[in-house]
Amino acid sequence: MALPSPVISVVVPPPSLSDNTGDADRLAAALRRTLDTFTLEIDFSLLPPLSSLLRSGTPRMRCVVVGDPPVVCGLFAETEFPVVGAAVDLGTTRIVLRLVNLETGETLGERPFDNPQATVGPDILTRLHHADTEGGLDHLHRLVIEGVNHQLDILCRSANIGPGHLSFLTVAGNTAMTHLFLGLPPKHLFREPYIPVTNRPGLVNARDIGITASPAAKLYVFPNVGSYFGGDLIAGILHTKMHESEELSLLVDIGTNAEVVLGDRDWLTACAGAAGPALEGGVTRMGAAAAPGVIDHVSVTPGGDFTYTTIGGEAPRGICGSGVIDLAAALFAAGKIDIRGKLVPEACKDRLTTLSGVSAFILVPAAESATGEALAVSQADLDSLIRSKAAMYTILETITSTVGVTFDEISTFHVAGTFGVFIDPESAVTIGMIPDFPRSVFRPVGNSSLAGATRLLKTPSLIKEANRIRDRITYLELNVNQDFMNRFSAAKFLPHTDRKRFPSVG
Amino acid sequence: MALPSPVISVVVPPPSLSDNTGDADRLAAALRRTLDTFTLEIDFSLLPPLSSLLRSGTPRMRCVVVGDPPVVCGLFAETEFPVVGAAVDLGTTRIVLRLVNLETGETLGERPFDNPQATVGPDILTRLHHADTEGGLDHLHRLVIEGVNHQLDILCRSANIGPGHLSFLTVAGNTAMTHLFLGLPPKHLFREPYIPVTNRPGLVNARDIGITASPAAKLYVFPNVGSYFGGDLIAGILHTKMHESEELSLLVDIGTNAEVVLGDRDWLTACAGAAGPALEGGVTRMGAAAAPGVIDHVSVTPGGDFTYTTIGGEAPRGICGSGVIDLAAALFAAGKIDIRGKLVPEACKDRLTTLSGVSAFILVPAAESATGEALAVSQADLDSLIRSKAAMYTILETITSTVGVTFDEISTFHVAGTFGVFIDPESAVTIGMIPDFPRSVFRPVGNSSLAGATRLLKTPSLIKEANRIRDRITYLELNVNQDFMNRFSAAKFLPHTDRKRFPSVG
Repeated sequence: MALPSPVISVVVPPPSLSDNTGDADRLAAALRRTLDTFTLEIDFSLLPPLSSLLRSGTPRMRCVVVGDPPVVCGLFAETEFPVVGAAVDLGTTRIVLRLVNLETGETLGERPFDNPQATVGPDILTRLHHADTEGGLDHLHRLVIEGVNHQLDILCRSANIGPGHLSFLTVAGNTAMTHLFLGLPPKHLFREPYIPVTNRPGLVNARDIGITASPAAKLYVFPNVGSYFGGDLIAGILHTKMHESEELSLLVDIGTNAEVVLGDRDWLTACAGAAGPALEGGVTRMGAAAAPGVIDHVSVTPGGDFTYTTIGGEAPRGICGSGVIDLAAALFAAGKIDIRGKLVPEACKDRLTTLSGVSAFILVPAAESATGEALAVSQADLDSLIRSKAAMYTILETITSTVGVTFDEISTFHVAGTFGVFIDPESAVTIGMIPDFPRSVFRPVGNSSLAGATRLLKTPSLIKEANRIRDRITYLELNVNQDFMNRFSAAKFLPHTDRKRFPSVG
Repeated sequence: MALPSPVISVVVPPPSLSDNTGDADRLAAALRRTLDTFTLEIDFSLLPPLSSLLRSGTPRMRCVVVGDPPVVCGLFAETEFPVVGAAVDLGTTRIVLRLVNLETGETLGERPFDNPQATVGPDILTRLHHADTEGGLDHLHRLVIEGVNHQLDILCRSANIGPGHLSFLTVAGNTAMTHLFLGLPPKHLFREPYIPVTNRPGLVNARDIGITASPAAKLYVFPNVGSYFGGDLIAGILHTKMHESEELSLLVDIGTNAEVVLGDRDWLTACAGAAGPALEGGVTRMGAAAAPGVIDHVSVTPGGDFTYTTIGGEAPRGICGSGVIDLAAALFAAGKIDIRGKLVPEACKDRLTTLSGVSAFILVPAAESATGEALAVSQADLDSLIRSKAAMYTILETITSTVGVTFDEISTFHVAGTFGVFIDPESAVTIGMIPDFPRSVFRPVGNSSLAGATRLLKTPSLIKEANRIRDRITYLELNVNQDFMNRFSAAKFLPHTDRKRFPSVG
């Protein structure tokens, strides 16, 4: 049974003395005929107003139907008001909501906002420890639920819709955020052997976790593979459709952790590993997340001058991950760092300074900077980047060699997230962070978690497919063994100890 | 999948680095293996405490599993506390709760109590009208739910069990009571064409209607056939097993309405009709429901003396339905009423008095009565009884003749309720209220609604069977046409115009 939309319009025949079937039973029969299904459940909260609703206007009803066996989680007369749903990308740092007209698929609004749990701690580990304290889980749960409710309210008001029209939500987040969102104790997520409460939350009643919506509204929560591979990645795969492709693809999502999926329509293998903090904001002394005034791209002229662009064209105030990669590539191309990533003093000359006792390269003089201080990258920052890029390359090398494929068999390299939007593949290849793919292979996919959640929101019959993706994934435990360490050591050079692997790098 | 009990004991294997399946997923896998089922749902409210519970003692868990597809609605470690459920007979006048140990099937306690909605009105129609007023439905809903919660609390306390151990309830009531219990507006039940909100409430979350139990507890609410044939009768059929029998049976439940089911394992036909008020308490001037001091049996000696017994042997204060039938049979046998049921003045002599201007027969002189007043049955009371008995007989004649069977093909005549326990078949046949069956055919089945609800409580796989019974029933609309009226007129004689139908009546 493939449903094009979660909203099914049916005519409920009026009762008569010769057909005194109950109201809910006539509705169910009409839906079963339309959906060609035997079993069908109607959420209990829809029953009290049902008889009045059926007698209030035309006999045509708009029913929101999700799940297998299908359950009716919304019921509306034919009025001008749209039936709506929301896709939720539940990030550790940022949450994004997208309000969608479930009948037309049209996006009615979108709200990105900071995860309110950041008041407890910016990183997930601080929050997980807080959840372990008295009342901590409830506190974190309330923070995120109230935040989502508040933003949903703003979205619904802007679209001139009451929250009672919100009938279906899809939620994609990492395993820890999923637990906190559902109010499930994450205690064993970060203790050996790293066990989630559930990997398949499935359909949850919005009312049971405090989400303000129609009383019958259901949430589909994307399943996790395990503690370190969450529903956001499953949503990402659903978005890229790499699980349907005849050709081999990679999907990479880079944050503090790098999460990687490799596969095609026959198999999917995934792994996750620490990529190091160099690629996130707040790490280099001038480090920052992508925001106005942050340097996103750096290049070097043949004459050796460094140029940069900032987000929004404002005066520079920091540098984000993609800028750091560009800078390292430029420094390497200009001979200002050696193949170990070490600053070459004689090549840097008047651009050198020291930061906390280590040498640093000045990218933006104090006079040009928005902060009034020079923006510099220290040797420590560069060392950190080298470790990150080596980890990334080693993870990719390990997953491909473990399943026995070579990089040149990969036809598409999906790069998820903000990082994928900003990164210059040329620079990433130059420093050997990613293999020397033909550049056409790269495909930035943006917020693939939100995109996958939206796709399922519009077509809930994909729940089966999302669950199947989850079950198809073979998770590869990245044992940091001697083999891994050897590969890592070799990847710590620019672009790599084995230069032959990077023919395109001059 | 046949479950002998709703409580399934499974060992949940502990997690390890080589099996880091989520806690809920390991539990579900263990249950799926035991139940040999593919799909299984765990109520969401069981998830937050799950991880602690699995790590708190032995890996053996007691799971309460009901429904198809099965849903886990209770989860307990192995402790000394029993897992309990409750069967509810939801009568208009009386409600009976039975607390049952779901593991052993043992009854832990029982509480009959007056339906608290009686404060609104003793009869269902007054309540249905009240439900139609502002706040009325909520009021009636709260009355019954609070009453049930209060009595459940008493039962649980007596059994030394916390309400959190209550995981499964079964509820059997007539269609109107079922609506009020679930908080569903009964507005269209008593308006043409008499449409229930739902005939198949199925499994409902106890929390959704305010029942105090485990947060995951489910209620199975017996389905209705229509507005005039409710889940109490379906439970009754399930109890008698007449739907499995090779031989033809009748099930009769008599109150203000007489509800009748006729059939065997191949077919079931039902009808319901007004039996008149004569058989319930409060109708004859001395009328009363069965209670201590109420006359339940009357007989006449060959010498013409009337003797009686009272419930509990106390001084007489009234007469219940079975006593009225006995009295009419005795009056008829003694020649004190004629074949039309009219008092014969010369035969009654000194036992005659007048009540509100009509003649009446004194059964208990004032000196013997607990009230200090004579207990008498007036001609008006007798006329009312004659109409009731004629209606009962006509309903039985109509249902059998409509499906083309004769009374002597019926091998068992189940008589439900208190009425069935007290009634003397000899008297009922003497006045022609029921056909002249061999007396061995009569089988009083007591509170068959409670018994059926208890049977399903202990064996929830019978949900399918209860639903199937409901779907198998052909409901016969008793059109009061000329044919019916002719039969009714003929049945208004004692025992019947056609004496040949009652060969055993002298």
